Amino acid sequence: MIDPRFAAVADLLDRFVEEDPAYAGQLCVYLDGAPVLDLAVGQDHAPQAGGFGADDEPPALRREALTGVFSCSKGAGAVVMGLLVQDGVLDLDARVAEYWPEYAAAGKEATTVRQALSHQAGALGVPGGFSLAEYNESERAAAQLAAAPPAWRPGITHAYHGLTIGVLMEELVRRTTGESLQQVYEDRVRSPYGIDFYLGLPEAEEFRYRNVLKPAAAPLPFIDPFGYTGLAFNSTGVFEREDGTAGELLDLPNHRAVRAGGHSSAGGVANARGLARLYAVTSTGVVDDAGSRTEPLFSAETTRLMTEDQVFGADRASGELTAFGIGFMKPAPQNSFGSVWAYGHNGANGSFGWADPAYGLAFGYVPLRGEDNGNLSRNGILGAAVRQARLAATVPRA
Amino acid sequence: MIDPRFAAVADLLDRFVEEDPAYAGQLCVYLDGAPVLDLAVGQDHAPQAGGFGADDEPPALRREALTGVFSCSKGAGAVVMGLLVQDGVLDLDARVAEYWPEYAAAGKEATTVRQALSHQAGALGVPGGFSLAEYNESERAAAQLAAAPPAWRPGITHAYHGLTIGVLMEELVRRTTGESLQQVYEDRVRSPYGIDFYLGLPEAEEFRYRNVLKPAAAPLPFIDPFGYTGLAFNSTGVFEREDGTAGELLDLPNHRAVRAGGHSSAGGVANARGLARLYAVTSTGVVDDAGSRTEPLFSAETTRLMTEDQVFGADRASGELTAFGIGFMKPAPQNSFGSVWAYGHNGANGSFGWADPAYGLAFGYVPLRGEDNGNLSRNGILGAAVRQARLAATVPRA
Amino acid sequence: MIDPRFAAVADLLDRFVEEDPAYAGQLCVYLDGAPVLDLAVGQDHAPQAGGFGADDEPPALRREALTGVFSCSKGAGAVVMGLLVQDGVLDLDARVAEYWPEYAAAGKEATTVRQALSHQAGALGVPGGFSLAEYNESERAAAQLAAAPPAWRPGITHAYHGLTIGVLMEELVRRTTGESLQQVYEDRVRSPYGIDFYLGLPEAEEFRYRNVLKPAAAPLPFIDPFGYTGLAFNSTGVFEREDGTAGELLDLPNHRAVRAGGHSSAGGVANARGLARLYAVTSTGVVDDAGSRTEPLFSAETTRLMTEDQVFGADRASGELTAFGIGFMKPAPQNSFGSVWAYGHNGANGSFGWADPAYGLAFGYVPLRGEDNGNLSRNGILGAAVRQARLAATVPRA
Repeated sequence: MIDPRFAAVADLLDRFVEEDPAYAGQLCVYLDGAPVLDLAVGQDHAPQAGGFGADDEPPALRREALTGVFSCSKGAGAVVMGLLVQDGVLDLDARVAEYWPEYAAAGKEATTVRQALSHQAGALGVPGGFSLAEYNESERAAAQLAAAPPAWRPGITHAYHGLTIGVLMEELVRRTTGESLQQVYEDRVRSPYGIDFYLGLPEAEEFRYRNVLKPAAAPLPFIDPFGYTGLAFNSTGVFEREDGTAGELLDLPNHRAVRAGGHSSAGGVANARGLARLYAVTSTGVVDDAGSRTEPLFSAETTRLMTEDQVFGADRASGELTAFGIGFMKPAPQNSFGSVWAYGHNGANGSFGWADPAYGLAFGYVPLRGEDNGNLSRNGILGAAVRQARLAATVPRA
Repeated sequence: MIDPRFAAVADLLDRFVEEDPAYAGQLCVYLDGAPVLDLAVGQDHAPQAGGFGADDEPPALRREALTGVFSCSKGAGAVVMGLLVQDGVLDLDARVAEYWPEYAAAGKEATTVRQALSHQAGALGVPGGFSLAEYNESERAAAQLAAAPPAWRPGITHAYHGLTIGVLMEELVRRTTGESLQQVYEDRVRSPYGIDFYLGLPEAEEFRYRNVLKPAAAPLPFIDPFGYTGLAFNSTGVFEREDGTAGELLDLPNHRAVRAGGHSSAGGVANARGLARLYAVTSTGVVDDAGSRTEPLFSAETTRLMTEDQVFGADRASGELTAFGIGFMKPAPQNSFGSVWAYGHNGANGSFGWADPAYGLAFGYVPLRGEDNGNLSRNGILGAAVRQARLAATVPRA
Repeated sequence: MIDPRFAAVADLLDRFVEEDPAYAGQLCVYLDGAPVLDLAVGQDHAPQAGGFGADDEPPALRREALTGVFSCSKGAGAVVMGLLVQDGVLDLDARVAEYWPEYAAAGKEATTVRQALSHQAGALGVPGGFSLAEYNESERAAAQLAAAPPAWRPGITHAYHGLTIGVLMEELVRRTTGESLQQVYEDRVRSPYGIDFYLGLPEAEEFRYRNVLKPAAAPLPFIDPFGYTGLAFNSTGVFEREDGTAGELLDLPNHRAVRAGGHSSAGGVANARGLARLYAVTSTGVVDDAGSRTEPLFSAETTRLMTEDQVFGADRASGELTAFGIGFMKPAPQNSFGSVWAYGHNGANGSFGWADPAYGLAFGYVPLRGEDNGNLSRNGILGAAVRQARLAATVPRA
């Protein structure tokens, strides 16, 4: 569907297909709780059991198709953390070790929940990396992380905890609720609101899964697996598969075990509609069939606590300027996805979900083939166009 | 006038005209309180009542001509703040709310004067922006700013408060002295020292005003009016004019109301001589007609308090590395305008005023057409040449 | 010698010679305390008494030849500081002034040893710079530095103290031990372990010294001698020679007085073997003739204290992202020389010495002609290749 006020954004999607016939992607935008764009363009490819997919004679991509959304999963995890904060179950200024005593080891004793959930903890990974099984069953990764020294004294800097922030979130949920983050997410967020964004894809939905396609990318330079970046991406992003061969990061969700586990760092599966709906649910509420709008899942105070800047600056590993709230990404100079009040998370394949309370907007974008992030990427161009369309259509209300 | 020791700098100005016949600018340099360069080059254009000026058959630009100097105005405001600090009327470590109780709202309770005057307060602007009238009469902007939430928890980062640092300065002056910043500036700084740098241009001086000319610039990308940059520049720098149309930032001082108000963020009007003289007055004192030098307006202790680094790092909005003292800019890698002890402020049109106590230098530069800032800009090239000339002429005394 | 597991690294050195016939350099790598690479390639040049050397009909460069290694000297100094920390003689959290009362002046009262030894003290230099004699006899430079104001309030930012961190280290050693840093280094480190890395080159070893050759470099832009960079590099890196003429930074160790003094900021003389051996001695110990390995000079706790991140971010002077432990450089995005646990120091001529405990590696590289630093420099390429060879050869043990 295309609300005429946002037609210029839909045109951009068509242009992407014209410019690159191999392109396929989904875009969904909610305004004040109702969809104003819900689109899929480009050709579908046959679902496959494992490995990067082939795409011979594909049908048109459907809006219902699901694929891996990588670190967008952190946004779903952060929604759960927000609920625990809202419940009074989790205190951002408490020490991690108050909930998780084993974490008080090797220089991590004073780490606060606030630091742990905003990439300041230095718990980047463990030397040697995690196996896929240890990662997917995050108790095992958590136990290793609890014993390991931090990559810096907690709080003095920050770097993207690409694969461990989910481990930290999940262990905190287990310790404070006795449940898994995935279960809390399913019970309180995904299922009640009918969100096509899974942390743990049921067998019954597998038929909708499409493999993440690999971009034609330049080979990476040497990334020291024991360096800041290598640790954070689990030894250069190489996991050992069950058969002993190495798996690439972008191939991760193409394994059923990863999709089934739904790890909150990068194991989520969604479509654009699911991403947008999740953020609409938290920020504006969503309009139901009877035409009434649900209460936003986050109260105003929870929104402030979870989405205000915790840290901004050069990432210790990459050197890029990044900003984080609690679990959520915040706009930064090269990834300026919204207003001061915007929050969300992108993924390694160029997918992106965000809410922007200044506009009443929620945004979901999912490409089928891995692509870039940043202001000049497709998600950056689409996100700016959505806000410009919103501004052109109405006087903003923020 | 050209002191022969600085002739190489004067040659640069001539080169600018040769390279660009449309160029016009003024340069003035004081050494130890007396002018060593006082120049205007290029063609004047007829003063106009509003809008960007035309320039058919212009006469040579005079040194007495005045134009908008934008954020150089912050330097004049900072001089006033320095006097209040020196008087013991304003304590940098006090909370803003001690002087201005309404400011204790929405998460800004603990903000210190130090933070507020060094771009760390997060009081970037208000959603929807200020009208020209609200901005120009800064009580009205101040009341809105006092009620608004900060763009971040004060103190955790910094971003250029392009249009609000003047609002903060002016309200602090009103609350501590009962007078306007403009009045204090006029009475204690501009008038007694005969400085051609006005915060509030009298009608009687209007005949000297020249419109700021618009550079032929590439169109800006979309700047979210609710984002960090958009807030700080008041909704993409677009003010509503009295007639309801949008006004561009560089056109602001071309409105009589703005010149008359002389807002200390960006409403000042000056020539290069005025900029240089202001900084000579604060740092070295100025040699009067009888040949004796006035005491520097700032004591050594005030100089230290006002000009030592308060913050250095990537700007939250732009990502650029910037540094600030109290109100004043400090040299930074891409804007290295002087020694460790230098202080000053540039403006959006490429104008610049600074003092460098290590050299006994004060510098003023004003172009008539908007141009860039930074090390490779005209003000950067001229400033480096001035210091090199000073070094070549004498052993520096710092 | 070439351990076959590291043959690919040796090939790189040969490629450097092929690509640039004027290239000459040494590379030495230790693994678990024993050399696995010990090489010199390219042509030697006749030793000369002063000034940059000529190179007519040079013989092959020997591994025993010594040359200036500039800021690699800071690494040798840091080893001494580590010993004092290990001895309990120096407390990183004490104020500098507890050991050195004169330092409590001009705003430096609260500076901690930790700040002073990690480039956060702001004691960048003194206006007017040091003479070569003042610098070389660091008591005289220390007395000036103790009286001078810092370039910023200590602790609020950091910038490379290119020529003064050695002054600070040396004075702290004098105040806590009564000996010179050079003497402690000689007695406890260099001599007992037979390390070809001198802080103070004896006359008897002069025959092995080769002048640092000057690269064909573009002229530098104006660097304000009173600015952050200019102060840190002693007035644009220009020292006054004994004959009153200015000496360039890269020419410093070509003066016998500098080599004899062995200042710990930049006065050290070494070969690649010496650099690698120093770092093997501290991190893994070295295998002696009887085949047994010495204890590492640094205990595990000393290693942690000395090599964990103290600061990371944009350098106040250069704007580059840099990271420091105590005295040692840490890997940073554009200088990612190793794992999270790596520590070392490069020099202005492109020389580099580091240890990487994650791999059991120690690395020394010395070019005869000045060249660049950073990921794409020869030392960056060689360092990455060494770690890749290590990973290919064995499962890393970290």
